[in-house]
Amino acid sequence: MAAYGKTDTMIVHTADPLNAETSRAALAEHDLTPADRFYVRNHGSVPDTDPAAWTLRIDGLVEQPLTLSLDDLRGLQRREVAATLQCAGNRRSGLLEVRDIPGEEPWGPGATGTATWGGVALADVLALARPTGTATHVGLVGADVSEEAEPPQEFGGSIRLEKALRDEVLLAYEMNGELLPPVHGAPVRVVVPGYIGARSVKWLHHVEVRDRPWEGFFQDVVYRLLQPEQEPGPGVGTPLGEVALNAEILVPDHDARVTAGPVAVRGYAFAGGERHVARVDVSADGGKTWVEADLDEDLGRWAWRLWSTEMHLDRGDHEIVVRAWDSAAASQPEHPGPLWNPKGYVNNAWGRVTLHVA
Amino acid sequence: MAAYGKTDTMIVHTADPLNAETSRAALAEHDLTPADRFYVRNHGSVPDTDPAAWTLRIDGLVEQPLTLSLDDLRGLQRREVAATLQCAGNRRSGLLEVRDIPGEEPWGPGATGTATWGGVALADVLALARPTGTATHVGLVGADVSEEAEPPQEFGGSIRLEKALRDEVLLAYEMNGELLPPVHGAPVRVVVPGYIGARSVKWLHHVEVRDRPWEGFFQDVVYRLLQPEQEPGPGVGTPLGEVALNAEILVPDHDARVTAGPVAVRGYAFAGGERHVARVDVSADGGKTWVEADLDEDLGRWAWRLWSTEMHLDRGDHEIVVRAWDSAAASQPEHPGPLWNPKGYVNNAWGRVTLHVA
Repeated sequence: MAAYGKTDTMIVHTADPLNAETSRAALAEHDLTPADRFYVRNHGSVPDTDPAAWTLRIDGLVEQPLTLSLDDLRGLQRREVAATLQCAGNRRSGLLEVRDIPGEEPWGPGATGTATWGGVALADVLALARPTGTATHVGLVGADVSEEAEPPQEFGGSIRLEKALRDEVLLAYEMNGELLPPVHGAPVRVVVPGYIGARSVKWLHHVEVRDRPWEGFFQDVVYRLLQPEQEPGPGVGTPLGEVALNAEILVPDHDARVTAGPVAVRGYAFAGGERHVARVDVSADGGKTWVEADLDEDLGRWAWRLWSTEMHLDRGDHEIVVRAWDSAAASQPEHPGPLWNPKGYVNNAWGRVTLHVA
Repeated sequence: MAAYGKTDTMIVHTADPLNAETSRAALAEHDLTPADRFYVRNHGSVPDTDPAAWTLRIDGLVEQPLTLSLDDLRGLQRREVAATLQCAGNRRSGLLEVRDIPGEEPWGPGATGTATWGGVALADVLALARPTGTATHVGLVGADVSEEAEPPQEFGGSIRLEKALRDEVLLAYEMNGELLPPVHGAPVRVVVPGYIGARSVKWLHHVEVRDRPWEGFFQDVVYRLLQPEQEPGPGVGTPLGEVALNAEILVPDHDARVTAGPVAVRGYAFAGGERHVARVDVSADGGKTWVEADLDEDLGRWAWRLWSTEMHLDRGDHEIVVRAWDSAAASQPEHPGPLWNPKGYVNNAWGRVTLHVA
């Protein structure tokens, strides 16, 4: 795990497929998360791809099926977007406290990060292939094979054509100004700003324009919101897409010992979809009274807002709570209980850490 | 109040300015709310406007200031959108149970409704006036004068230019296929789908293209989300815009007596902004177990979804609860307490009615 820095930077859930999240402290240090401390949620081993031999096939409901090389892609207009990616299972650990979910990674709040992504607009590639009038969805397929599906299959997903044509959706070959690292999808990954990380398919090799969602395992069976008593199965539940409003406390860490007096508190808030973070409130009394946090620089509509404030804490144990409000004046649920669902997605209840003040 | 039908159809909060909401039972009857039972939230008396003399001024940061007559407007391409309007104070009564808000109307769940609106795109009018490169917001001013402001001023508000250029934003002269009635803004009102009703300015007479939000009372002081202990004032709090996800039970009515056995339950759910309603859950045990409701016909991305289901209820008192989930897998807060704010906006906690089953 040397590539992922110190053990106090990354929390590794499984080594292969690699599943690792950023520690709270490390996540709080940068508005733009360095690649070597950016969370990794993989469903198969990292494929061994030779960039010189890599090709991207674009077919399905298009007038002109295409096969593009990396040089072809680099010949198109380069675009850049600062975007937060967030795993649908981020903060699952809060749901596990409600009820167990066997076999799922116990993600804390570090299955998210923000980077500038450089590449070409998926829309520009689709313009070359010319989707037909019946096209409504775009399937995105990676080269990584997952044994979570039976039989094993490549990871993939789909988004609606309307979103695919938005110029923020990139086929990215750069992350924070450098070549995309293998573990993050080199040579080319999709970046779908505002959507769950699973739609930002890594090791992309196939774009299929369709008249319905992609039917692969990771679109049709998992990454769906189910009723508490439902069993995952083809088409069961509603597919996840845009990310729900979320917020967490990163500093001080949960269960930390701190000194009485002024305590610096820092964390993130992220409004997915088309929304932005309007306000972040922090409470030291479980939500009876709140202070409004200061928001860091606005990195644009697709990125989180880091925030900070100072709380004056007396001796004793304190639960510090955070909640965000988005541009629709919507906020977050107080407790994770009503959010529990099979597979454990979308815990966006108020963030909480307990501090021991001495 | 003859124009607003039977007294069991409309609940009149004040007669002048007229403020009236639709009863639960009346609201449940139509996917498209008839004009004579559509909620009215006015801040001044209905202005006496002669359609033949009416003009619309478009100025500010435009290359070509314009004055258009109703005939000029009707000469542009006619468009139609099915859109839900919802007052920012809809369901305020739930917040009043938390803490009083003197001087505000105690709106129940009927300060919302859905209609097809016919008119021209604001974008088409703006295209004639040609906003300059510095334009970022569009002010919308009506002819109704409100004494809530001191000194009294015309009602108005603003939206970002980006939204104003979307083709769903209409200058409407028709409602449900008929001429817009005076109380709903004749001859021309704005309809801003997905946004709080206050931005759908009635009796429109002035469109001002700007490089900042409109500074009038109803944009700069009210229709803003404040911290619980803040006092309304210029620029205090965050402006409301898109509507937060909401849901309510309309049938049976709150406090109704029903017969044990199967009970038909019906209501609405609305996802504002760019989102759509993905799922509606109903519970007869306060949220421990849920059944998924059937959704009525999808009227398009800007309209509510009415829903219905059947619950089997034994004798005794039951609290029936509803919650919706949107396309971001976001749901609603369980209780209104944490939502309380000065002026009492955006109560989108779970909907609840108590039934007495005999």
